[in-house]
This record gives sequence, structure tokens and C-alpha cells, in this order.
Amino acid sequence: MDDRLERYAELLVRVGANVQPGQEVVILAAPEHADTVRAVARAAYRAGARRVLPWYRDPHVRRALIEFGPEQVPGPARYLPEWIDTWDEGTALVSLSGDPSPGLFDDLDPARVAATEPFDERERYIQKVVSGVLNWVIAACPTPAWAERVLGTPDVEALWRLVGETTRLEQPDPVAAWREHGARLTGRAATLNDLALDAIRFRGPGTDLEVGLIADGRWGAAGTTTKGGIEFVPNLPTEEVFTAPDWRRTQGTVRSTMPLVLGGTTVRGLEMRFEEGRIVEVRAEAGRELIEADTTRDAQAAFLGEVALVDGSSAVGRTGRIFYNTLFDENARCHIAYGAGIETTLPALAGSEREAWLAAGINVSRTHTDFMIGGPEVDVDGIRADGGAVPLIRADRFVI
Amino acid sequence: MDDRLERYAELLVRVGANVQPGQEVVILAAPEHADTVRAVARAAYRAGARRVLPWYRDPHVRRALIEFGPEQVPGPARYLPEWIDTWDEGTALVSLSGDPSPGLFDDLDPARVAATEPFDERERYIQKVVSGVLNWVIAACPTPAWAERVLGTPDVEALWRLVGETTRLEQPDPVAAWREHGARLTGRAATLNDLALDAIRFRGPGTDLEVGLIADGRWGAAGTTTKGGIEFVPNLPTEEVFTAPDWRRTQGTVRSTMPLVLGGTTVRGLEMRFEEGRIVEVRAEAGRELIEADTTRDAQAAFLGEVALVDGSSAVGRTGRIFYNTLFDENARCHIAYGAGIETTLPALAGSEREAWLAAGINVSRTHTDFMIGGPEVDVDGIRADGGAVPLIRADRFVI
Repeated sequence: MDDRLERYAELLVRVGANVQPGQEVVILAAPEHADTVRAVARAAYRAGARRVLPWYRDPHVRRALIEFGPEQVPGPARYLPEWIDTWDEGTALVSLSGDPSPGLFDDLDPARVAATEPFDERERYIQKVVSGVLNWVIAACPTPAWAERVLGTPDVEALWRLVGETTRLEQPDPVAAWREHGARLTGRAATLNDLALDAIRFRGPGTDLEVGLIADGRWGAAGTTTKGGIEFVPNLPTEEVFTAPDWRRTQGTVRSTMPLVLGGTTVRGLEMRFEEGRIVEVRAEAGRELIEADTTRDAQAAFLGEVALVDGSSAVGRTGRIFYNTLFDENARCHIAYGAGIETTLPALAGSEREAWLAAGINVSRTHTDFMIGGPEVDVDGIRADGGAVPLIRADRFVI
Repeated sequence: MDDRLERYAELLVRVGANVQPGQEVVILAAPEHADTVRAVARAAYRAGARRVLPWYRDPHVRRALIEFGPEQVPGPARYLPEWIDTWDEGTALVSLSGDPSPGLFDDLDPARVAATEPFDERERYIQKVVSGVLNWVIAACPTPAWAERVLGTPDVEALWRLVGETTRLEQPDPVAAWREHGARLTGRAATLNDLALDAIRFRGPGTDLEVGLIADGRWGAAGTTTKGGIEFVPNLPTEEVFTAPDWRRTQGTVRSTMPLVLGGTTVRGLEMRFEEGRIVEVRAEAGRELIEADTTRDAQAAFLGEVALVDGSSAVGRTGRIFYNTLFDENARCHIAYGAGIETTLPALAGSEREAWLAAGINVSRTHTDFMIGGPEVDVDGIRADGGAVPLIRADRFVI
């Protein structure tokens, strides 16, 4: 176990965030993740980090606020969120994602859950990660409560095996395995770029959605590069190819194909209708209040920022599990995200003002929330400018 | 267990910090303390707190810095320590003291341990707690590593029983028990005030120390009051009566009678020699480097700020245990502290400038470190202005 933790930490530090000598490394985590935080700290110092700063956040303390706190929920805390604004090229970020207890807020008053959502913090955080200043990685950290949710039993060891499989940790040479896997995904992105598609169409039960693309927009995958030139792999695992759609051009209806755990709340049966890019209707069996609060955070929150393709043959898809953790579930299924667009889609615009991004079709928002819309019953086509359709995914497998 | 944790949290919030409606409650803790942090958060919100902010610090990450960090240790981290400066009358503080793993740094290079000591943070923290702005409590939180150290086995349940005994948690009405205990200690302080002593003398193996007192200095005990009038009990447990000596008037030699765990390092066999109030010689079997760094933090660090009396009949003394945690060990034995003096000793000076405190004999420093000097072989006398001696403690029992 200890050896695995050290190897996992090395993977996060060397392949994921790619920590550089002299950097300050911030580790976002919950108290349940302490063993992994400590292993990451050791790995980061061995990689030459100048300083490692763990930042433990505790969803159970937020639960106490929702349950027993004042009727009028206080505004954002001073001080800590502003720290995020100081992160710069000298900062690397390792985020141990995943609620330690997914669905911790499911039995609570949805209005109070939405009112206590740390939007201020998320906004500052999203701003940093989409703008290409930091090298960062989000990775998961098994806990008993998460294992219980995924496997029906608090078998942390079994959950670690799934994490090990999907992150290629148990391969003889994980770094080489990642290089090979990254090349495969980059090849798929190149194929999509060559197709010069005008839109992506999803069709399945409850879904008939056309997502319009940006003419010069690039598909990306796996690794990316900071403005300063540091290569990093922001998600471990990662199986998707993605681009930022034109925020003005999504049309139709979509039904999510997996539950979405967002800040401790499980959103189930999410359905949306889009008109001229905008989400004009939100329905859900559970968690609708939170999605409504999230999609109305600012004027652009109700427009798409990302569309991503992945099929059931991915390392995550092959497990056949619902992880109740977007990092994993989005790497088993095609997904879309409303909110901030991915700036690397139009590298020529790097450093531009907000207006230039919006004019080019890349959304600018304070939120970014992914949800899963692909699956065995959902066909995916690319649509060319001439209206011709190119089958991309059939029966949950890429056909390109 | 859960019920005990909730009762313990109520004791810390209601009797200890005495959290007021509308206050912001900061909880200092290690990740190992998460269960208690969460119970304190619930109790604080039930008491009307406006917001609860947990601040988890991780000594294992500091260990990683000492072991694997850069040769040149970085200066204090930006941002987090400055947060302390913003705490004010609207802030209550619950500090879950005690290293989760006492002695975690004992096998490391003492020079690097001393170089990574978060003096900056401690200084800001001490400044806040000695100045009477905050209502606060320090209390302990059992962990397996701490139980291992105290009991020789990681029996957390047995350590919880000792904590329950010494904090009166298991009494039928802990609040009433604390009121009664507080009255008993306050009575002892009143007796000492009536004696109008000029000095305290400690004599035992390796110890012949005279600590000169301030003419108008008051002895205090148990509860105290913020500038704003909130009563609180800053230490749970507490068994001592204490005052600030005249920093210019300590003379002689002293040998500590218990190990001292200071920021993760165990200091053993500590001996000091004083001349005209100043520590002029420090010896120790282990940990001397850390004490030398601490006593030279500023020009006043090498002078005393506190002298406190307690005997073996105290609730902590009766356990017969060494806790490797100053909060407990200082409540079993007479102790002294170098560094900042206790301002409540001279309430008439409240709000004065540094120079006025120093002129009156109350030390002003950025540090404050207690260590244990009493025990079965150490006699304690009060010395009157006319030179006459009043026996205070004999054979580890008060005789006043």
C-alpha cells in the first residue's frame, strides 16, 4: 500500500502536474486524503518544489453550516479564496478531487445547499485553470465513503484497484504507458481536426442535440501546455478528446446518461433544452435547484463551453462502474459542459480580452460544469459545413 | 463514541471558548482531528456562530519539507499567516492542540527542524491570544500516534478515557463541575494574592531558582475575560494558578522535570541558568537547537513571561502519565514560560504600549514556551518582601 501511494504520488507530480524545480505546489484536498497529500508532498519536494502548501477543505463543516448555521447564510469567507488570485507561473496545483463522501448533501434542504455553494472560490479557481497560467492535475483519492457509493461496500482496496487500472498506475512503466496513451488520444484529435466539422450531433433516448463548432477551433486531448511552456496532463485519468463549441450555436434537447455529483449533491435525471446556444429549460429528478443556481451565476453561464467525445472502450468505460465523480465518469462517456470555454481551442487568441473570445465563439463565464450525455444508446455524428453527416460513435464505439 | 464527541464539542464551545452568537469560529487542527473538528463545527453553529472556518495544518507535510525540501529552506508562506492578523472581537478560536504524532521530527536534522519552525505564524497567534481580543480554547484530540506515545499502544479509546477524566467530561454535569473547579482554583489564586509575595523559589535536583514577582501583579486561574467582556476558559484541562513574573528578576538554575514536545520535536533533559532575568545558558540531552532558536527570536525571548503552580493532586497529575503534550503536562507540574508575559497580571495596564509593559516588569516577546519544572522532589516556597519564606508546595502537594 505504501509503495503504491508513493508511485501514485510520483505519477501525479511527474506526469500530471509536471512540477518544476523551484515551484510552489498547492495541494487541494479533504482531511480524508491526508495520506495521499503527504505522499504528494514528498514527491513534489523530490521533484525540486520550493514549498508545498496543503489546503484542506472539509465538506462536513459545510454540511454543519447547512444543517445548523444561521438562517441567513453568510457570504464568502474573507481571505482564503483571495489566496487563489495570487497563484501564478510559479505555482503548480495538485487537486485531489472527489468528495470524500459523494452525495453528502443529498438529504439536506436544496435551497440551503445551493446558497452555501462556494461559487466565489470555484470562480477564482476556474479562472486560473482555464487561462493556462498554472500547470495542474486533478486526480482521485479513494476513501471508504466513496468506495461505499461506487461498490456498495467501503472496500477502499477494491476502489484503489479501479483507480490503479484507469490511471495506468499498475502498468510496468506508467510514464511510458501515459506517453503511448497520450499519442493515441492526440491522434484521434488530429483525425477530428482533419474532418473540419461544423457541428456534432447526439441522438438517443431523450436526446436530439446539435452542438455548433467554431470554424478554426482545434480538438485537444490528454496533455496540454502552460503559457510558459510547461507540458502537463490536467486529468488523471483522461480518455476524452474535447473542443470548445461556438456558444451561440447549440440547439435541441439532451438527457444526461449518468448521475452528476456536484459539490456534494447528486443531480439525477438532468434534462436540458437549448435555443440558440442558451439553456432555456432545466429539468431533473434531483438537484435541479443547484443546476439552476449554477447556470444563472452570470450572463454566460447558460451557454456551452466544452463538448467532449469518449467511448465505452476507454479504460474507465471498461470498468462498467458509475464512479459518482466527474473526473472518472466524464472519461467513460461523451459529455458537455456549460460555462467557461477552453481557451486552447483557439491558441491564436491567447491573451485576448473577454470580448474577443466571445466574438470568436469561445464562452467566458465564472462556472464550468461537465455532465455526461453519451452511452450505448446514443449515436454521435459529425456534421460537415455542407450538411453531410460523418458517423463518429456507434454502439458506444468510435468508428473513425 | 459519537455521543461523547458531541458532548466534548459542546464543552469546548460552551465552557471553553464560550462562542457567542454571530461570531466567526476558527478551528485549528490536523487532518487526524477531522471528526472532532466536525463535531465542534456543529456545536458552534448550534451556539449561534455565523461561520466556522476549519484551518487544517499538516505536520507531515512539514516533515516532507525537512526531509526532501530545498537546502535553503523557504521563508514563511504568503497569505495564510497574515489571516491571523484579521482575527478580532468577532472571532472565537478553538485550537485542537497536540501534535497528532508527538515527536514526529525527533529523527530529523535539528538544524532543519529549527529552520522550518513556523515562528512567523506562532508569533501572530501568540500576539492575538495574549492581548485579550479573542475568546479561545486549546483542547486535545486523541489520535492513534499520540496514544502510542503516552500508553505504548495505539489505544485511542484509553486515551479518550484519560482526556474525559481530566476535562471532567464524564461527570454527570460537566458545566457545573467546571464552575466548581474554577471556583477552587480562583480561591487558590486569591490566597496567593493575599500573601503578597515578592518571589517564588524552586529547589530540587538540578534546580535552585528564584523567580522575582511584580509588586502589584495578580495571580490568575482557570477562566478569564476578553477586553470585550466575554468569559472563557482558555485551556481544557486547566489546573494551574499563574502570574507574570518581573522579567528582570529571575536568578539561578533550573532542570526540567518532564520532556517537552515543541512543534514536533521532543526536548529532553532541558537545563537553564538565569542571570538578572536572562537565560544565559541552555543545556539539553535532545532538542537544544530548537530551544536556542526559540529563545533568540527577539531581544526579550530569553526572559520569563509566566510562572505557574500546580501539584500532583490535580486531575492530570493523578493520572501519573506523561502526555508529551504541554496542555496536559503543564497541568500536572509547576512550570515556567520564557517569552511573552501574561497581560492580565496587571489589568490596569490594559491597552498600554510595549514600553509601559516592559517598564512595569511584564515581558513582551514574539514567543511563549512553557516547560515543566515541578515534581515530587521539588520544594516550592513563596518569599516575602522581608525575606521570610512561606512553604507553598511540599512533596508535590500544596500546603497553603
